[in-house]
Amino acid sequence: MPPGFTTEDITVLLEELRQFSTTHGQDGVTRLAFSREDEAAHRYLADKLATQGFSVYRDAMGTIFARLPGYDSSLPAIGTGSHIDSVPSGGGYDGTLGVITGLYALAQFEPGELKRDLELVVFRAEESSRFGFSCIGSKVLTGHIDRSSWIKNTDDQGLTVFQALSAAGYAENKLASCELAPARYDAFIELHIEQGRRLENEGKTLGIVEGIAAPTRFRVTVTGLADHSGATPMYQRHDALVASAMIIEDVHHAACKEMVYGTVGTVGKLDVSPNAMNVIPGLVKFYVDIRGIDKNSIQRVADRLADSVSKVAKENDVQIALESLAAETPTLLDTSICRLLEESAAHEGITSMRMASGAGHDAMYMASRYPTAMLFVPSREGISHHPAEYTAPQDIAVAANVLKNTLARLARA
Amino acid sequence: MPPGFTTEDITVLLEELRQFSTTHGQDGVTRLAFSREDEAAHRYLADKLATQGFSVYRDAMGTIFARLPGYDSSLPAIGTGSHIDSVPSGGGYDGTLGVITGLYALAQFEPGELKRDLELVVFRAEESSRFGFSCIGSKVLTGHIDRSSWIKNTDDQGLTVFQALSAAGYAENKLASCELAPARYDAFIELHIEQGRRLENEGKTLGIVEGIAAPTRFRVTVTGLADHSGATPMYQRHDALVASAMIIEDVHHAACKEMVYGTVGTVGKLDVSPNAMNVIPGLVKFYVDIRGIDKNSIQRVADRLADSVSKVAKENDVQIALESLAAETPTLLDTSICRLLEESAAHEGITSMRMASGAGHDAMYMASRYPTAMLFVPSREGISHHPAEYTAPQDIAVAANVLKNTLARLARA
Repeated sequence: MPPGFTTEDITVLLEELRQFSTTHGQDGVTRLAFSREDEAAHRYLADKLATQGFSVYRDAMGTIFARLPGYDSSLPAIGTGSHIDSVPSGGGYDGTLGVITGLYALAQFEPGELKRDLELVVFRAEESSRFGFSCIGSKVLTGHIDRSSWIKNTDDQGLTVFQALSAAGYAENKLASCELAPARYDAFIELHIEQGRRLENEGKTLGIVEGIAAPTRFRVTVTGLADHSGATPMYQRHDALVASAMIIEDVHHAACKEMVYGTVGTVGKLDVSPNAMNVIPGLVKFYVDIRGIDKNSIQRVADRLADSVSKVAKENDVQIALESLAAETPTLLDTSICRLLEESAAHEGITSMRMASGAGHDAMYMASRYPTAMLFVPSREGISHHPAEYTAPQDIAVAANVLKNTLARLARA
Repeated sequence: MPPGFTTEDITVLLEELRQFSTTHGQDGVTRLAFSREDEAAHRYLADKLATQGFSVYRDAMGTIFARLPGYDSSLPAIGTGSHIDSVPSGGGYDGTLGVITGLYALAQFEPGELKRDLELVVFRAEESSRFGFSCIGSKVLTGHIDRSSWIKNTDDQGLTVFQALSAAGYAENKLASCELAPARYDAFIELHIEQGRRLENEGKTLGIVEGIAAPTRFRVTVTGLADHSGATPMYQRHDALVASAMIIEDVHHAACKEMVYGTVGTVGKLDVSPNAMNVIPGLVKFYVDIRGIDKNSIQRVADRLADSVSKVAKENDVQIALESLAAETPTLLDTSICRLLEESAAHEGITSMRMASGAGHDAMYMASRYPTAMLFVPSREGISHHPAEYTAPQDIAVAANVLKNTLARLARA
């Protein structure tokens, strides 16, 4: 008879996993993908899952699959899960909470109690911190290995993800064998912290994620002419920063007009050259990040950016290069699973709201193959990727039960 | 009988002085104030001036005064001059040209030929490169020593200007004795390269400087909230960069409206934090530099900046701190000397235009005590403080003669 696993145990296991880290206390959690600490955490978790009575399997890159059999294991299973690798000095909740609440959900049922199997997946290398690109594990599982592009990305020690896998003892040449069968899951749900402040601001306890935004990104290079700020009259200037300011405003207004579609547009990085108080900026480089789950809405913001660039270049006598860096397709999640999650929340008297995920998640790749949805729990002050990351235990308990109930409804069907 | 000094000799002496430098060739001229090279250049020049038959005197900080007596030396003299110290890897014309053309002007007359004495002044430490503040020599000469503030500024070796003077063998405690008598000059003219492109763009050979702009400077600190660029809807943002962009545009438009007064407004330095593509900027610091020679016009731009700050802070839900860093009074130069310079240019069929100097010069401090004017010669492509600094020999010759004729008219009066 396996031990039980209560909502209090969620908090205990969160705390235990926090210890698998090169940083501690105020410096948060550092558990980079395939690092010694990440490997140890995966082994600890695999043991824990076996002790709970699940059948545990690790694939060629160490992905953990823990299965609770239903009474008809021939049917596609119902999956849940997330990742446990972290960013440097991150928090203890990002990813990890989805894994532990998944464990909780499975632990509430007896083998053979439900019709379909329930399966918990602990994805590898979701964070981009080590290799510069994200969701490596879920990409491998869903047939999105891109060897030629991946070998161009190395960690701080110059290792590619393939070399890091070998160094950690995995047979990286067997990576393709990790791909999951198309009929493995009938549904998949990832629970994750929101990493934003919408739930907190709206006073809701659960977010039902309808779609995962994909970034459309541009680099804008404005070339003017660096000149003495005192000696150059206004009509003889080629001011790269004034031109950039006009484009930043246009992008902002364009995104605000798309508010109803949830589209957002941001200039987060901008560098001025020569950046001296008494020199008119001769060169400004900045990046535009547009996200949303409505392709047409994203396109309207991108179009307005292009219009702004031509208009502003003429108005300010500057050269502007607009380069597209990414134009990914947003992921729409499964509406019927979303409805089940919503009903389950309502049934328990939990407030919820539909929302989009601005950040990427493993669910994005799972959705390319299986009906998939996501459940968001509130992040205090929206803080994430930071030691101060926190979600209240009562919010976790509520979400874990909604997850459990929804998985059960799916597994009974 | 002293040797003659022709316009060709100007070019020769410019080339000779270029050699007093720690850098050479493509690396331009580096002759920092009171450095070994600067001292050697001053000694070389003092010898040269003595050889030309002028009576040469060096004061307690090494300022060179070379005098050509008129037939009534009891009258206030007519002065001219500039500086020969340079910025690191600067050009051979900034300052130096005003000294050598002054030498040329004096050398065209015999002792006792004019009524008043003509005097050439070679100012010390005009560039701010070594000690972080400028016009040290002309400040001392005109009673603007500010010991308590000056001792806070040190060079790269940690020396104050007072320590550097001692190290170079000067009696820094006698600095106050350098102050010039209020009746020493009846007029003073500084010839200088334009360091801008207005003359070149307007196709004029000479600039008659009516005033020297003073910078009114502000630091603007915009504090918003750093947030995930994907997870934060447009209506929940506190974007410090969008707010900054709006202010930059407002400053630009305000300055453009003052174009007829020659006022300019620039944001040259701006830093974004955390400056990451996927993070909404939480903090932006930038500097506003407003210059002109019309105080009311400058004030209107400063007022519009303050209005913009309050409006933008409200509109964008950000905090904005506006700090005044400098609010210097512009220097208006002597209108009758300007008119003489203009007439002299017209008389020789030379095209000229009235203009303001955006940059500061020793003439600014001389103007605090004596009727003063400035004559600008074109800078090729406006380049200055750079090895590529260049003024064509024919432009120099023309300007040197206008300077000579104007000094003579003043000295005959």
